[in-house]
Amino acid sequence: MTKIKKLWKHFSDIKKLGYTANLLHWDMQTYMPEGSNEGRSELLALIEEISHNKLISKKTKDLIKNAEKVKDLDLIDSTMLREAKRDYEKAVKVPTELVVKISRAQTIGHKAWVKSREKRDFSIFLPHLEKMIKLKEEYADKLDLGETRYDTLLDDYEPGVSSKWIADVFDDLKSELIKILDKLMSSSDKPDQSILKENYNPSKQWDFGLEVIKKFNFDFKHGRQDKAVHPFTTSLSSTDTRITTRISEDFLSPALFGTIHECGHALYDMGFMKEIHNTILANGASMGIHESQSRMYENFIGRGKEFWDYWYPTLQKYFPENLKDYQKDEFYRSINTVIPSLIRVEADEVTYSLHIILRFELERQIFEGEVDPKELPDLWNAKSEELLTVLPPNDSLGLLQDVHWSEGYFGYFPTYALGNLYCAQIYEDALEKHPNLPEQYSKGEFSTILEYLRENVHQYGRIYQPRELIQKISGKELDAKYFVKYLKDKFYPIYGV
Amino acid sequence: MTKIKKLWKHFSDIKKLGYTANLLHWDMQTYMPEGSNEGRSELLALIEEISHNKLISKKTKDLIKNAEKVKDLDLIDSTMLREAKRDYEKAVKVPTELVVKISRAQTIGHKAWVKSREKRDFSIFLPHLEKMIKLKEEYADKLDLGETRYDTLLDDYEPGVSSKWIADVFDDLKSELIKILDKLMSSSDKPDQSILKENYNPSKQWDFGLEVIKKFNFDFKHGRQDKAVHPFTTSLSSTDTRITTRISEDFLSPALFGTIHECGHALYDMGFMKEIHNTILANGASMGIHESQSRMYENFIGRGKEFWDYWYPTLQKYFPENLKDYQKDEFYRSINTVIPSLIRVEADEVTYSLHIILRFELERQIFEGEVDPKELPDLWNAKSEELLTVLPPNDSLGLLQDVHWSEGYFGYFPTYALGNLYCAQIYEDALEKHPNLPEQYSKGEFSTILEYLRENVHQYGRIYQPRELIQKISGKELDAKYFVKYLKDKFYPIYGV
Repeated sequence: MTKIKKLWKHFSDIKKLGYTANLLHWDMQTYMPEGSNEGRSELLALIEEISHNKLISKKTKDLIKNAEKVKDLDLIDSTMLREAKRDYEKAVKVPTELVVKISRAQTIGHKAWVKSREKRDFSIFLPHLEKMIKLKEEYADKLDLGETRYDTLLDDYEPGVSSKWIADVFDDLKSELIKILDKLMSSSDKPDQSILKENYNPSKQWDFGLEVIKKFNFDFKHGRQDKAVHPFTTSLSSTDTRITTRISEDFLSPALFGTIHECGHALYDMGFMKEIHNTILANGASMGIHESQSRMYENFIGRGKEFWDYWYPTLQKYFPENLKDYQKDEFYRSINTVIPSLIRVEADEVTYSLHIILRFELERQIFEGEVDPKELPDLWNAKSEELLTVLPPNDSLGLLQDVHWSEGYFGYFPTYALGNLYCAQIYEDALEKHPNLPEQYSKGEFSTILEYLRENVHQYGRIYQPRELIQKISGKELDAKYFVKYLKDKFYPIYGV
Repeated sequence: MTKIKKLWKHFSDIKKLGYTANLLHWDMQTYMPEGSNEGRSELLALIEEISHNKLISKKTKDLIKNAEKVKDLDLIDSTMLREAKRDYEKAVKVPTELVVKISRAQTIGHKAWVKSREKRDFSIFLPHLEKMIKLKEEYADKLDLGETRYDTLLDDYEPGVSSKWIADVFDDLKSELIKILDKLMSSSDKPDQSILKENYNPSKQWDFGLEVIKKFNFDFKHGRQDKAVHPFTTSLSSTDTRITTRISEDFLSPALFGTIHECGHALYDMGFMKEIHNTILANGASMGIHESQSRMYENFIGRGKEFWDYWYPTLQKYFPENLKDYQKDEFYRSINTVIPSLIRVEADEVTYSLHIILRFELERQIFEGEVDPKELPDLWNAKSEELLTVLPPNDSLGLLQDVHWSEGYFGYFPTYALGNLYCAQIYEDALEKHPNLPEQYSKGEFSTILEYLRENVHQYGRIYQPRELIQKISGKELDAKYFVKYLKDKFYPIYGV
């Protein structure tokens, strides 16, 4: 075996342990009997321990050192080496005791967060949040990958970007979003989503969702859909990608748009080039790029006018009792209702990114030492009023709404909004190359957009980092203007403003 | 940690890797998309490799050596050490190359067997069978655990028994079974199972099966049932035991008795004492003892008169179109129809063991060098006529019917018949201690039998070897007479002979 092949094989074993852990997780969220939590956690801990030990072993170090001696590596080999080195160095820099401390703090912190939220009492969660911040500061100091601690934390989710870079992009976005929201809210003819909140037969919702993603070319020979309380997408091998969905009996949106969203994630994982199957490159470029794919399917396509030109008659057949006399154009408006609200996960396309900017700004302040965690509720509420025009009546509907901080996932939130921006910039390029995409959707044709995404995004997996990828596709740095333009072009007509 | 605790921990990791492999298998048989076979096989191979390397490591050797120095071990610790040593020694004695050769021969042999069976042409399978026999001879020579090679092979499935010991028990059984079968076939009033071969709604079959095993105390908090082409039971942790079933739309038996059969297996795995959870002792004493539990539920209880006193009215309510006017006594007779037939998996309680004896005698002759594999079809057919009075019209209905030999599972078959014998001898003891068991069944009470089995069989897991366990329970060596008596007492009245 060549030096490079040996490195491939070693990291492919690590990748396979990751797939195995994914199956343990998938089963836990879908079919596992309720009394098996502890036994399952032990299996997960063992697989993760074996994988971690493999990664930080002397063998890894030697294999990397040997591979570095090889000259004239091609794109795949050189990126594989780059990512192997990155994974290795990040793993060895953090002492195992710190990993264990963080893991314990996650478990305890999560429980405290649940209780804190139930009791609407931030003081229960506060000491755990403070502890987690301290631990993550320590973690960032050990890794020391960027100019600031927060830059280092971001690297776990969005490699190659800095908090300053994000802040610059978000600043442009923020002022524009506030303007757009303001304008939409001034409309005297706002859409209304009550039609979506009627009773819809769950098994018909399931069937319609499957019909849609089949047309999107979700590959059921190499994937499947199951039910889960918190929908997610996961891969259990290079030829096995699964999505989950949640069906609400009295709200059409969660299953419908949830299924389409996860399908967007799955198509990414299903589209990696064969050459990187079973390697550590068989992964999304970043959380943000992954999110760009799910949002493109969910929002740019699935909440688009032309999509419903094709699908609405079918949907009416599935649910005649709800939709027989409801016009297509009204339905299109109803699924694009914009309402400034308290809860991120229920937010629309316009306000969603504002929820994220709020969190990003707070996280950045926390890790730059500008904020005492005690002050967070007040700061949250002030920002909520400023950005979203709504004031949380209690902390459970404010800064306690999301699970992320209890688990120490600082730096994760911004990737959701970056996903929107990447998406818009990529979609702009797709439309330039294939101006008739919307026309195709109205005929139920979704293969051109998938081919475009496979060629420009999916196949590369982790080969290009997000900024490189966006540059490669659009020839430019990430710019919020594409997303802003998309929102204006779409929502001004809907709101008649 | 004490020396013994260290050994426990080490082997508990090996056990957990086994559970992980079980999940990979379970998912493959239940939900995995069809195109994911190769990716899944690679994960399985990796987990098995990691587990095997852990087992044959110097660390294992040292831990065992250290543990052996500890004096006055209690029952659990000393058995754990015994079994750890047994697993270790068996693993190190067989060279890895041989394991790989056998594994490859399994894959290729299985394909050849499928083709051979399809084409009804034994010559396609013959060279692969010859090769597998050679490899298993080599395997037996390396292990060298008994007086004969076949004794060694048996040890993988039924520790502590020899082929001579089995032959002695089976010889008694064989002549009695032939006599019983002869007598039953002389009856002028044979039951008829055509009622079972009508159309039965699959989802109602599913629901009825669940109702039955719920009454048996199958613990749905720590287990579940799913569908699979080849039903099986598996454990994914000490608190997660799953069964699968297969539903036939035009035959009531497979799902009904299959579900009950697998439930018997599952109750065993669910009943290990807490002290041995997550240890290598959390396993059946042997394949035969495991089978004794499934057969007790399927046949001794589930095909018993009193069971149907309780359940038949419910079954009639599930399937009024089939059973409304069909009498309970006739139903009881129909599910206990005895027919000498060609196919083992379709055999009844009387002829089943004859199918096994046929295979046992041939396997023994093969590994004692008395048979050239070329002659197997003729030998099979002659034995089939002798034991079962039926002559296979072709090899696909004869010696090609079972998958086991293609995968090299020589020594597995006898455990099926041993299961019947263990079962009868254990059940005799249960009835002696609780003479009113049948009366309880007729009232839908199944907790006494489960408590009895938990106390006498389940809790011990692998602590006692099969012969010890039977001795402990009945005070005697295994004897076919209990099973013979059971068959006569049950079937003579049914056949009016």
